[in-house]
Amino acid sequence: MSGGEFKSLEESLEKNLPKGDYDEVRRILYGKNVEKLDCPEAARLAEAGKFEFKAYSLVHTTAKEQGRKPNLVRIGLIQNHIHAPTDAPVADQFSAIYARIESIIEAAAAAGVNVLCLQEAWTMPFAFCTREKQPWMEFAECAENGKSTKLLSTLAAKHNMVIVSPILERDFSDRETIWNTAVVISNRGEYLGKTRKNHIPRVGDFNESTYYMEGEDGHPVFETDFGKVAINICYGRHHPLNWMGYGLNGAEIVFNPSATVGALSEPMWGIEGRCASIAWGYFTGNINRVGTEHFPNEFTSANGKPAHKDFGHFYGSSYVGAPDATRTPGLSRTEEGLLVSEVDLNHIRQVRDSWGFPMTARLPMYAELLARKTSPGFEEQIVKQP
Amino acid sequence: MSGGEFKSLEESLEKNLPKGDYDEVRRILYGKNVEKLDCPEAARLAEAGKFEFKAYSLVHTTAKEQGRKPNLVRIGLIQNHIHAPTDAPVADQFSAIYARIESIIEAAAAAGVNVLCLQEAWTMPFAFCTREKQPWMEFAECAENGKSTKLLSTLAAKHNMVIVSPILERDFSDRETIWNTAVVISNRGEYLGKTRKNHIPRVGDFNESTYYMEGEDGHPVFETDFGKVAINICYGRHHPLNWMGYGLNGAEIVFNPSATVGALSEPMWGIEGRCASIAWGYFTGNINRVGTEHFPNEFTSANGKPAHKDFGHFYGSSYVGAPDATRTPGLSRTEEGLLVSEVDLNHIRQVRDSWGFPMTARLPMYAELLARKTSPGFEEQIVKQP
Repeated sequence: MSGGEFKSLEESLEKNLPKGDYDEVRRILYGKNVEKLDCPEAARLAEAGKFEFKAYSLVHTTAKEQGRKPNLVRIGLIQNHIHAPTDAPVADQFSAIYARIESIIEAAAAAGVNVLCLQEAWTMPFAFCTREKQPWMEFAECAENGKSTKLLSTLAAKHNMVIVSPILERDFSDRETIWNTAVVISNRGEYLGKTRKNHIPRVGDFNESTYYMEGEDGHPVFETDFGKVAINICYGRHHPLNWMGYGLNGAEIVFNPSATVGALSEPMWGIEGRCASIAWGYFTGNINRVGTEHFPNEFTSANGKPAHKDFGHFYGSSYVGAPDATRTPGLSRTEEGLLVSEVDLNHIRQVRDSWGFPMTARLPMYAELLARKTSPGFEEQIVKQP
Repeated sequence: MSGGEFKSLEESLEKNLPKGDYDEVRRILYGKNVEKLDCPEAARLAEAGKFEFKAYSLVHTTAKEQGRKPNLVRIGLIQNHIHAPTDAPVADQFSAIYARIESIIEAAAAAGVNVLCLQEAWTMPFAFCTREKQPWMEFAECAENGKSTKLLSTLAAKHNMVIVSPILERDFSDRETIWNTAVVISNRGEYLGKTRKNHIPRVGDFNESTYYMEGEDGHPVFETDFGKVAINICYGRHHPLNWMGYGLNGAEIVFNPSATVGALSEPMWGIEGRCASIAWGYFTGNINRVGTEHFPNEFTSANGKPAHKDFGHFYGSSYVGAPDATRTPGLSRTEEGLLVSEVDLNHIRQVRDSWGFPMTARLPMYAELLARKTSPGFEEQIVKQP
């Protein structure tokens, strides 16, 4: 589905740069070295299933402490494409994707993943480019006990794994409104809660504001058996204050399940999640879907070009970022995959102690600035020429 | 002064990657292509003066508009090392650096630079590692009419160039206190104003809190003949809210004059300034000094290692970032240099219209969050397992 797309930045660097240069380029771009994690059973499942599998440990970036034991967590990210044509019955499209996800989750379990996140609106094609309501709204589900929540709850309990499931939600308790929502399922297979996309794009083919509004549930952080988890959905990654919200509420791992295409956002992809990891001191799991999706009816892109039926190429490249600016390599730009990253959550306090960002943050100054900015009569602080 | 330091990430990529790979790697990492700008006289001066000269145009990333003419500005960044031993008389150390800066500014003028920024505390070695007050405090000057302000005012008027001059300030109007300050000199050679470092580090050898406190002048933006300019000094770049402050006050170009070393911050260097450019919609000019500085007396680094006399390697790598995530290549990691970047300030509104970040920012939600966070009794928004 990927056409002539370039497969992987990291593979190109590793293959083409002389060793000395490679080490320096990698360090400057990606921080401390990450170690490959050996997961033979997961690797075997991935090979049999024909999806990419990468696993790394960042644990060596964390020092041993006297008072706390290591707090190791294996974070799993899945990127996938759709598995049935977009004109197949909705139930068939869902079943085809779910079958694939279930098999990748088997590999995640084999790799010992504790906390897993799927991509944004994983149950469906990213049909918001079309501005059509039907049949796409039929993918919407009840967050608390819809089909995908039930299926994943079974897997979560089976594998003792927290699963974050970003779906299109229909809120049956509030006039059947539609939301872009992430459901958090505990490792006991219980519905733990949900959180909604806080910032909705109006850019390119991302006509999501036709379908749902901005979330009004703040920046919840979910306390799981494997760390405090939050979810900044897709376009929210462009807003530093959204990342701040999860940080101020104590998140240790923030996922950014996304659906974004190369021509639009790719040079930003490696920047924003990592910047949030550094600034707010948590791990980020940045996930993007992969492949090109074709729709039954043509649509225009408000760019002067002819109507067409395909979204641009979703470039995958899912990765994990750490507070000390270390990051893993990305999954490929073209293939489905599972990325496993073992981290020590003790890293967070160590980096905060070292860099002192919370201590030096001066939040009262910014509370005052934002209060003024959002009140009538705000004037910019401008120094003019005499 | 650079030892065996790796010279340039960009040069290594360009030299070693096959053409097709290079184009994709460059695009993913650095965004749209930037065009080389031809400045033969400046190039000649740089060659004669033995400093690096790079010049790029980003103007083609901006569309022609019907209602506004192009608003072209040439931004200049200078990175330099010190030019006399740190045990030479203070006046001699200053004179040696100034002579060098003056000659680089000649090249900037020849390249048509409109707005120029020097590196943090450009008049002196970055002696704050030592925690000694003498002789280093003798580098401190009156911002309004100290020696460096007078000298640069002459050059600013001569070259019709706004010059941002980050110095160690002694405030003679307030008990002779010391500040880390950037002075803004208009292209008419007049003192326009000053701004102080808002966030002071306590990390590694950056013992700056021994010398000066956090600025209390907010986030001023200086309206010059060549755009609205602000200065986020050094460690302030790690604080997204500091970048926000300049953005909310209308900045079009924000400089980040810095002094930072490789082992500490290098993987963050390409992230934070660019993230701010994207999120807040302004150009950033990110400047770092270069070389290794040796001091007369040994000092320790609070890392269990023996006392020593040298700071780590300042890795240069100054660059300009744009709101659409395009960035220029960096100056080298090892040599002094001048980077010239021609931009069209119309780019800012165009990218904001396209991406819609100001429109979707939801500032009242964050004003409310920060007000709560900075009031007694704040509780994190945590969802716990039942």
